[in-house]
Amino acid sequence: MNAEELIMISVDDHVVEPPGMFEAHIPERYRDQAPRVRTTKDGSDVWTFNGKTIPNIGLNAVAGRPKEEYGIEPTAFDEIRPGTYDIHERIKDMSAGGILASMNFPSFPGFSGRVFAATEDKDLALAVVRAYNDWHIDEWAGTYPGRIIPMALPVLWDAELCAEEVRRVAAKGCHSITFTENPATLGYPSFHNEYWDPLWRAVCDEDVVVSIHLGSSGQLSVTAPDAPIDVMITLQPMNVCQAAADLLWSRVIKKFPNIKFALSEGGTGWIPYFLDRLDRTYDMHHLWTGQDFGGKLPSEVFREHFLTCFISDPVGVQLRNLIGIDNIAWECDYPHSDSSWPNAPEELAEVAADVPDDDLNKITYQNAMRWYSFDPFVGGRTKDNGTVAALRAEVAGHDVSIRSYDKGRFQKQVGIEMGKLAEQATA
Amino acid sequence: MNAEELIMISVDDHVVEPPGMFEAHIPERYRDQAPRVRTTKDGSDVWTFNGKTIPNIGLNAVAGRPKEEYGIEPTAFDEIRPGTYDIHERIKDMSAGGILASMNFPSFPGFSGRVFAATEDKDLALAVVRAYNDWHIDEWAGTYPGRIIPMALPVLWDAELCAEEVRRVAAKGCHSITFTENPATLGYPSFHNEYWDPLWRAVCDEDVVVSIHLGSSGQLSVTAPDAPIDVMITLQPMNVCQAAADLLWSRVIKKFPNIKFALSEGGTGWIPYFLDRLDRTYDMHHLWTGQDFGGKLPSEVFREHFLTCFISDPVGVQLRNLIGIDNIAWECDYPHSDSSWPNAPEELAEVAADVPDDDLNKITYQNAMRWYSFDPFVGGRTKDNGTVAALRAEVAGHDVSIRSYDKGRFQKQVGIEMGKLAEQATA
Repeated sequence: MNAEELIMISVDDHVVEPPGMFEAHIPERYRDQAPRVRTTKDGSDVWTFNGKTIPNIGLNAVAGRPKEEYGIEPTAFDEIRPGTYDIHERIKDMSAGGILASMNFPSFPGFSGRVFAATEDKDLALAVVRAYNDWHIDEWAGTYPGRIIPMALPVLWDAELCAEEVRRVAAKGCHSITFTENPATLGYPSFHNEYWDPLWRAVCDEDVVVSIHLGSSGQLSVTAPDAPIDVMITLQPMNVCQAAADLLWSRVIKKFPNIKFALSEGGTGWIPYFLDRLDRTYDMHHLWTGQDFGGKLPSEVFREHFLTCFISDPVGVQLRNLIGIDNIAWECDYPHSDSSWPNAPEELAEVAADVPDDDLNKITYQNAMRWYSFDPFVGGRTKDNGTVAALRAEVAGHDVSIRSYDKGRFQKQVGIEMGKLAEQATA
Repeated sequence: MNAEELIMISVDDHVVEPPGMFEAHIPERYRDQAPRVRTTKDGSDVWTFNGKTIPNIGLNAVAGRPKEEYGIEPTAFDEIRPGTYDIHERIKDMSAGGILASMNFPSFPGFSGRVFAATEDKDLALAVVRAYNDWHIDEWAGTYPGRIIPMALPVLWDAELCAEEVRRVAAKGCHSITFTENPATLGYPSFHNEYWDPLWRAVCDEDVVVSIHLGSSGQLSVTAPDAPIDVMITLQPMNVCQAAADLLWSRVIKKFPNIKFALSEGGTGWIPYFLDRLDRTYDMHHLWTGQDFGGKLPSEVFREHFLTCFISDPVGVQLRNLIGIDNIAWECDYPHSDSSWPNAPEELAEVAADVPDDDLNKITYQNAMRWYSFDPFVGGRTKDNGTVAALRAEVAGHDVSIRSYDKGRFQKQVGIEMGKLAEQATA
């Protein structure tokens, strides 16, 4: 299939939360306490909440910049593409990139909402999480039906409340919750603790996928304080295999046969090796470790429960049948630096030149639709006008040129962020 | 090629150090201070050195046991196969397993000799490291020329002394040094520090491979204190990719163009994904991170410097040309629980059924010979009488039956070790 004919749903992109997002959604009594954006003396925009400052509005939102300026963080709204925070511009950017629909992970709250969870006033925290989810589902996703796969933040500090929130958002049509790679490293009970059972019960009941994004454990893959940053960039996606192993061998999989996890931005090329490793571990060790999957192999169990996701992964595409052709979904990672927006369709078509159409359709949109109970074909949208070519034609003239947003703050910020990484590594 | 015709060199096995190993090699003035074996009240054998007890004589030396008894650690010499600590029995076990030659990592000193490095009296520590290496090279490897690839411990606490030791052992024909995955996590300067340059200069001058074994960073892949041990068993080999990334992006590779590293027990199936990830990281980020390989891609650079090693890895064998057919060596891992001894030749022949003979010969012995400057064809040994069939015929009748060594201490020890893992994870 050539690039123009592809139908593409991305299961991992990112929203940069716009100022004012809470206004229409936070209860009146918390209006003054909701997170808000401030501009600092040096011109950076920051979120403030609960007496704390969260400087990182965009989490590496560098789409449309020249590669020389990728670095760590743009720090102000006027340094990033409006498509990162404005839904109307986002839809144009998606169409110009050939992308029919997209699921958007959060930015400033952290992938599992731990910025909100850190609040001592848990009533306030819950109000903020709910307001965030209402904004995301009703406003961000709701403005353009069929274009955004809705996703909700969890109530990270309380499994019962989290289950309630899952049921609440599912009733609004949201079938994806963003969660952490490892609750234990964030200070909560681990995946092996019964504590989370109410949440698992709710996601199974409501057909909600637990979407686990790389980097959501609160731990960076930093080998040494003086390691080049390229080391961390290389290793970070493979970190998610820890979550996969942790969950695969856990009681969760055994007790909740319908539970579904997505390994977002985890890549796919390492999965066949990982599945072999699981099966060999089982073969060599289950007689003394006591693991028991009722006659199934771990690799079979993996395919019943895990969606794997890739941006660009020639090896994974080649080995798709060793992974499981129903277990792979493409992602764009807009607006982060690993994204190939707006040329992702061309990149994928090249990588998948030898892939039969039926396989490729599963990878580019059908698996995403099934796993996330999501239908992009609404309001007159059909497979014919949902292709890369059709979407691009709808926004002909939309500016996707590469340009510099650098206003001098940028290189300084790179230095600050690299210093922070070094501190984290030694802490 | 069928199993009987294979010529097999294993680049990763383990010696369990025998009591009395230091006697012929430690200088007279340190005789009373050399490590020695004691038997505890409950019948366990332990090494003692420098006022400390090292309980783990065998590091999981379970070869020949039923899988029900694999667990963590046998704790006494009479609970493990004599082939683990007696060179004459080892050679018989190797021949019965069809293995022509083998490289043996240490057990009680730790993979990088950190038990010795922890001694305050550095003269004593140096004497012990040298005695260990003399025993390993002259006695363990020297008794059966062509059967053991000699390997030396490093002087972990002093790069200059380490360089001297590398030159000393190289003069004795030893072209492999065992090192750590990450000196930073052991409290030494990282791979990115010029501190180690004397060592790197010595290994390049002397054509010595730096063999990095999984688990040598002092860090276990433990996700949570209450995670099943299967999680750690699954993840531990992939941990070595951190060392690979750390070194690949480091100045070491750029400053020492002849340096060679082996990723021992690291597996191979994940390497093609890893190489893609390296190249993509370079493409997307080098303009701001400043990485520069002089026009080469990181994947090309990787193949110039890294040997990858696998026990059983169908995906790696299938993807051998994406890894680099000159960069793969087979390993047996005798006597640990991931080993298929004595049936490894049959297992490999099945996995490699479709692999051309020229490729398979590189994987089973030719790459090991070239990387480690090692020649097994000495003293009348030829390719004809170095095959699996020929070696097995030489030791016809040698007992390789699976039997229980359990004397009641074993299950208790499993409990203790799992408790220790949990402690480490929470520490």
